Amino acid sequence: MNPTPKKNARVRDLGEFGLIRELRSVIGPPRGSVVVGIGDDCAVLRGDDPDKYLLYTCDPVVEGVHYRRSDQPRQVGWKAMARNLSDIAAMGGVPRWAVVSIGLRRDTRARWVKELYAGLRAAARKFGCQIVGGDTTQVKHEQFVVVTLIGEVERSRMTSRSGAKVGDSILVTGKLGGSRRGKHLTFTPRINEARWLVGNFPVHAMIDLSDGLSSDLQRLVEASRPGIGFEIHAAEIPIARAARGSLAAALHDGEDFELLFTIDPRHVTALRKQWARTFTLELTEIGRVVRSREQVTIIGADGSRKPLAPAGYDHFATS
Amino acid sequence: MNPTPKKNARVRDLGEFGLIRELRSVIGPPRGSVVVGIGDDCAVLRGDDPDKYLLYTCDPVVEGVHYRRSDQPRQVGWKAMARNLSDIAAMGGVPRWAVVSIGLRRDTRARWVKELYAGLRAAARKFGCQIVGGDTTQVKHEQFVVVTLIGEVERSRMTSRSGAKVGDSILVTGKLGGSRRGKHLTFTPRINEARWLVGNFPVHAMIDLSDGLSSDLQRLVEASRPGIGFEIHAAEIPIARAARGSLAAALHDGEDFELLFTIDPRHVTALRKQWARTFTLELTEIGRVVRSREQVTIIGADGSRKPLAPAGYDHFATS
Repeated sequence: MNPTPKKNARVRDLGEFGLIRELRSVIGPPRGSVVVGIGDDCAVLRGDDPDKYLLYTCDPVVEGVHYRRSDQPRQVGWKAMARNLSDIAAMGGVPRWAVVSIGLRRDTRARWVKELYAGLRAAARKFGCQIVGGDTTQVKHEQFVVVTLIGEVERSRMTSRSGAKVGDSILVTGKLGGSRRGKHLTFTPRINEARWLVGNFPVHAMIDLSDGLSSDLQRLVEASRPGIGFEIHAAEIPIARAARGSLAAALHDGEDFELLFTIDPRHVTALRKQWARTFTLELTEIGRVVRSREQVTIIGADGSRKPLAPAGYDHFATS
Repeated sequence: MNPTPKKNARVRDLGEFGLIRELRSVIGPPRGSVVVGIGDDCAVLRGDDPDKYLLYTCDPVVEGVHYRRSDQPRQVGWKAMARNLSDIAAMGGVPRWAVVSIGLRRDTRARWVKELYAGLRAAARKFGCQIVGGDTTQVKHEQFVVVTLIGEVERSRMTSRSGAKVGDSILVTGKLGGSRRGKHLTFTPRINEARWLVGNFPVHAMIDLSDGLSSDLQRLVEASRPGIGFEIHAAEIPIARAARGSLAAALHDGEDFELLFTIDPRHVTALRKQWARTFTLELTEIGRVVRSREQVTIIGADGSRKPLAPAGYDHFATS
């Protein structure tokens, strides 16, 4: 299924999924203090408190890929921090400390950099996180911002991509698609919602939607036990206004930064009721975890069934 | 002394020192769990163990700035990890966990990336550190590698840039200058030496030499109390073979990744003796911490005294 790539394969031939598989094989399996290594939203580490885990994640934002040169630096900073906060949310945790590496052209205005930092700080502060260090370097071409976060989570509340069980309901927060029209720079990472969820319900598996529902469903399936499949109903997918009615946009656009999770269906009624009393954000049940040889299946309004291939944003396979 | 930069100042007008000052003012002073924030080799954090601190650092490596496109990817990976290990060494700590963000061109060979990772892993493993996560993204032009490290240090052994005392001896490990001729890709971060030092002697202030002795002495002075100056003796500076007898190279070249530290002079004889029994690496006393209005003074063989301005590598002020 995952053949060894050809000797002279290039990054674009492997795509992001293939590349990460290759790098995991170089690094080897996690050992000792590492509970979850490469391949989830955060690494999970055993620290000194037996009741808690440390969460650890980093995420690069590059000019021309994640933002345009003409975008507001404050929004670029917000996005660079919020993407990482969203990864902490996916594990059910709270963010604590951030460090920031930035690559800058020499002719960039100092004011642009200060605004970038103001955006980074605003997103961090909103969720109780402190920027504690960083480094800057020169670049000739595209600028970049790499934020790294340390978070914490109670061991009993930690969620990962790998816990989906046959029979689970699949739910998603918010509405999907069209994020590139603006939301990708201003979105709210779902820290508060995730904390409430893991504090009140036994969530089995969770991920944040960064590369598109189709890609991130694929990630959940690949992290699940063999023989598990996900079935989703096309008519149930919540489509954002910015997606202008396009189901394809909701499935594949990416950068939604909503939460996708699975939970025992017996909890869904209570969850919906309590959620509605707590948040105005939408919460939608979109499908079921099933016993299946097909990884992800999308069921049409007419009952038609099709495999849903990951077609979200791939940094390398798309141009 | 540090005037507010002009409204339209660019990054190159501020230089790296000026830019970091600006960003510190945006971020504000460290609070709560943060013992040391922006401005040392690592951030220092209070975790759950009252006897230990967490260390936290990140450092970007960019093609065309820190390495050439033609350099061996395994050495590039080694360097990207070792630079960060060197920052942990400067605080007297041990490295624990690394995450890696890389920006790759689509036409880069998968083999190049695997070799890069092999170098990252080799440097990490040599010092008991695990790579636990990372992310990749596309770039169009220069590739980059950002490594972030979490380390640990006993509270009683933690060293920072700020503890220099009047009367201290100033010592440096190894030999300096000419690193760009090769050492910068293959150097050994001084983790073992630093751990031995903080375990056996009361080190007052420590830094790793990344941007050149002149720049890093300036950093130590700026982190010290007002009224403290550093005097170094030109004739005592250990010049590396690759610097070909050039004192200027030893003072300013940068990327030596040796340790520079201060200690009560009464310990120096015992330190030298025990050091020589433990390491083959050179250890040289190069000067004294004094009461002075001049920040760093270099004393010539003829007794002449000159202020030593930081003239090491600046990512922005140099081209």
